[in-house]
Amino acid sequence: MHSRWLQKIPPPLLPVAGFLGIIGLGTLALALLPMVHGQRLPLIDALFMATSATCVTGLSLYDIGTQFTVWGQGVILVLIQVGGLGIMLLSTAFLMALGHRISFRSRFLLQDTYTHGPTAHLTHLMRNILLFTFVFETAGALLLFLRFHADYPGLQAAYVAVFHSVSAFCNAGFSLFPDSLVGFRGDPLVNLTMAALIIGGGIGFLVLHETALALRNRKRWRMLSLHTKLALSTTAALLAGGTLLFLLSEWSETLARLPLGTKLLASFFQSVTTRTAGFNSLDFAAMDNQTLLATLMLMFIGASPGSTGGGIKTTTLGVLAAVSRARLVGSPTVHAFQRTIPEETLRRAFSIFVLAVVVILLGTYLLLWSELRDVAYAASRGRFLELLFEATSAFGTVGLSMGATPTLSFWGKWIIICLMFTGRLGPLVLAMAIQPRGKRSFYEFAEEPAMIG
Amino acid sequence: MHSRWLQKIPPPLLPVAGFLGIIGLGTLALALLPMVHGQRLPLIDALFMATSATCVTGLSLYDIGTQFTVWGQGVILVLIQVGGLGIMLLSTAFLMALGHRISFRSRFLLQDTYTHGPTAHLTHLMRNILLFTFVFETAGALLLFLRFHADYPGLQAAYVAVFHSVSAFCNAGFSLFPDSLVGFRGDPLVNLTMAALIIGGGIGFLVLHETALALRNRKRWRMLSLHTKLALSTTAALLAGGTLLFLLSEWSETLARLPLGTKLLASFFQSVTTRTAGFNSLDFAAMDNQTLLATLMLMFIGASPGSTGGGIKTTTLGVLAAVSRARLVGSPTVHAFQRTIPEETLRRAFSIFVLAVVVILLGTYLLLWSELRDVAYAASRGRFLELLFEATSAFGTVGLSMGATPTLSFWGKWIIICLMFTGRLGPLVLAMAIQPRGKRSFYEFAEEPAMIG
Ligand SMILES: [K+]
Ligand SMILES: [K+]
Repeated sequence: MHSRWLQKIPPPLLPVAGFLGIIGLGTLALALLPMVHGQRLPLIDALFMATSATCVTGLSLYDIGTQFTVWGQGVILVLIQVGGLGIMLLSTAFLMALGHRISFRSRFLLQDTYTHGPTAHLTHLMRNILLFTFVFETAGALLLFLRFHADYPGLQAAYVAVFHSVSAFCNAGFSLFPDSLVGFRGDPLVNLTMAALIIGGGIGFLVLHETALALRNRKRWRMLSLHTKLALSTTAALLAGGTLLFLLSEWSETLARLPLGTKLLASFFQSVTTRTAGFNSLDFAAMDNQTLLATLMLMFIGASPGSTGGGIKTTTLGVLAAVSRARLVGSPTVHAFQRTIPEETLRRAFSIFVLAVVVILLGTYLLLWSELRDVAYAASRGRFLELLFEATSAFGTVGLSMGATPTLSFWGKWIIICLMFTGRLGPLVLAMAIQPRGKRSFYEFAEEPAMIG
Repeated sequence: MHSRWLQKIPPPLLPVAGFLGIIGLGTLALALLPMVHGQRLPLIDALFMATSATCVTGLSLYDIGTQFTVWGQGVILVLIQVGGLGIMLLSTAFLMALGHRISFRSRFLLQDTYTHGPTAHLTHLMRNILLFTFVFETAGALLLFLRFHADYPGLQAAYVAVFHSVSAFCNAGFSLFPDSLVGFRGDPLVNLTMAALIIGGGIGFLVLHETALALRNRKRWRMLSLHTKLALSTTAALLAGGTLLFLLSEWSETLARLPLGTKLLASFFQSVTTRTAGFNSLDFAAMDNQTLLATLMLMFIGASPGSTGGGIKTTTLGVLAAVSRARLVGSPTVHAFQRTIPEETLRRAFSIFVLAVVVILLGTYLLLWSELRDVAYAASRGRFLELLFEATSAFGTVGLSMGATPTLSFWGKWIIICLMFTGRLGPLVLAMAIQPRGKRSFYEFAEEPAMIG
């Protein structure tokens, strides 16, 4: 009965309605709770913060560690957890549906585990995701507690540890420290725990689950699904490449006065966190232009599907790389890991890439209007990059900022709210919408090519 | 015999070899000729100028009107004419081949005219393109002469008129005036003549020819090929949209003190020229950030295929717009003007879009390295946009600059040279390479999707 009612809503609109509802409740809660100094948040600010938390973006108008009460921080924490779980569940369910549909041709390891009829399937999946989240977040909080315990009294240390563990696993990027994790940039325990949480939350439940099953059954790499292989290999390449980029271009700048170990740790952490988590242990205002462009690209790419992360996704990048290789080799079909990638997947990857570029450019254009109006370029040098960075960060649900967030105008806040929401749900809704349908229109137009390029 | 020899070279490499040869000769000529002050150009500068002229880009390290002798200007003029004709011929021939291949399914107006066997076809086409170019450039030069005649002695006026007519028709953007066309921004004769030349050269020979045939035979709009419909409608939309964008965002800035007629004329001219010609009648240094972002996007889009223009092309934009509409409507196939756009065309459009974004970002990244090295963002505010603008302008073979060209370092010049060359031939070579082949590999891998988004 419940599921029949749900079936009447077009599937791509369900997540949109769900997220709007959560954001609405969060906005109410934040608008009603007083801040530390007794004042209340303006409604637009409450909406902004609720959207940023629910979409696990992490852009913030306030320093929540000092300006929000524990109640306000608690609302943020709940929104992060609900938003993060929600997106993980939704996109994992979609991925499973995708696997189900093609089960005649290709066999997923996972389908053995989950294909017991649709209802059992969803309940089972939900239980597993909750368990997975609980185990990761608890382990993370315990490890972080070991460190924070030295700085704070017991209960507060536990609270700070839980907050950062949830924020890291959900790739939210909210921190209770005013300078994010700059103060801990040399601390291996904090950095590696946070990095493990971010990677675990960002690679997706199915990928980890499948890898674990393959390892347990002593099955080989080739038994993994194409999806898992793409996600794992692209993530590994991005982590290594990102670390190298930060190391090389910041060696004589933000990394200059740090010992070698800290240089490596900070570069690795920044590489992990830039793609979608949005913590920082280095100061973005002091970085050079190359690093900032590399950061823009990493934010654009983001994490893996079926996870708490944003961006166009690692698998999209992997598919586009496979397309490029096919073009160079002159292969008529596109392969990866000895599998042919179907046209439908290629179409999704290209569509999401183009959509992301267009939305980010449109968002930046509107921000240039809302924030600068008729100020000439010569009088606002550098603001272009700051606002492009802000728009990309919002769309990729990253949460890094070059400092523009607290200075946003009323319309600027609305633009970022829309970008955060579109970036969170747009790629998923689009991917859901691009499915081959059974019904075809009764007549088809004749085909005719047009020249391109 | 001649054609057999040609057939041994893979077709996509022919244009590359041809352009490299012309650039090599041009570099030699420019390096051997002394400049006005008796000095010779450094070899890298000669290469830069020869590439810019042959690729009809228009980025310039020198003010050729005052620093080059008439001989040097003549070399530039010849390179523009040869490069412009070369690209128009190559891409038109490719478009014809595309039309030929699908002639069983769809009937082009043009095929009636040109399909008389491959050799007759190419000779006939070449003669028509030469005639078309000659008519346009002569008419343009005569009209421009009427105006320049008032400022210069007869022979010089004729020379200046011919130079600007060729430069406009080939969408090269080189001007003998140090401030491009700023001095003529209120002159309807110069602006409208130049605009007609730019549009004529940028929409492509086939489109104009087909439109003329349709008009002459009193055939209707629906008799035109999909290609022509897409090119005409997208160009019209871009011209109108671009004019409106310039008018709105520069109304109280660079347009502020001009009379209404000049405001309109300058906005229209800037809209025409930004997509690929690269003349300017307004000062880019005084524009606001929104205008500059809109300019970036117009430069990225560029002109129509089979023309002297660059960019990802209007038809690519038209196809992507049709894809977006299909997605929104939920249509399984992509339509435009009551024709189904084949998968192959969609794949080309997407590939060229992604390629262009990646190459421009890579070029910008390298420029940030070559021009700024370890200078922090805070110490180089605004340089990011200037170099992104330069890279986009080079790739789109536009030639507009925010002033970075003359300040380029040795490696910066090499990067821009590579961008100009890739932007000129990349999309064409890529489009040629993405053709369905008869031979398929003997075995095919099993299909397996990956989740995207
Ligand atoms: K985030
Ligand atoms: K040009």
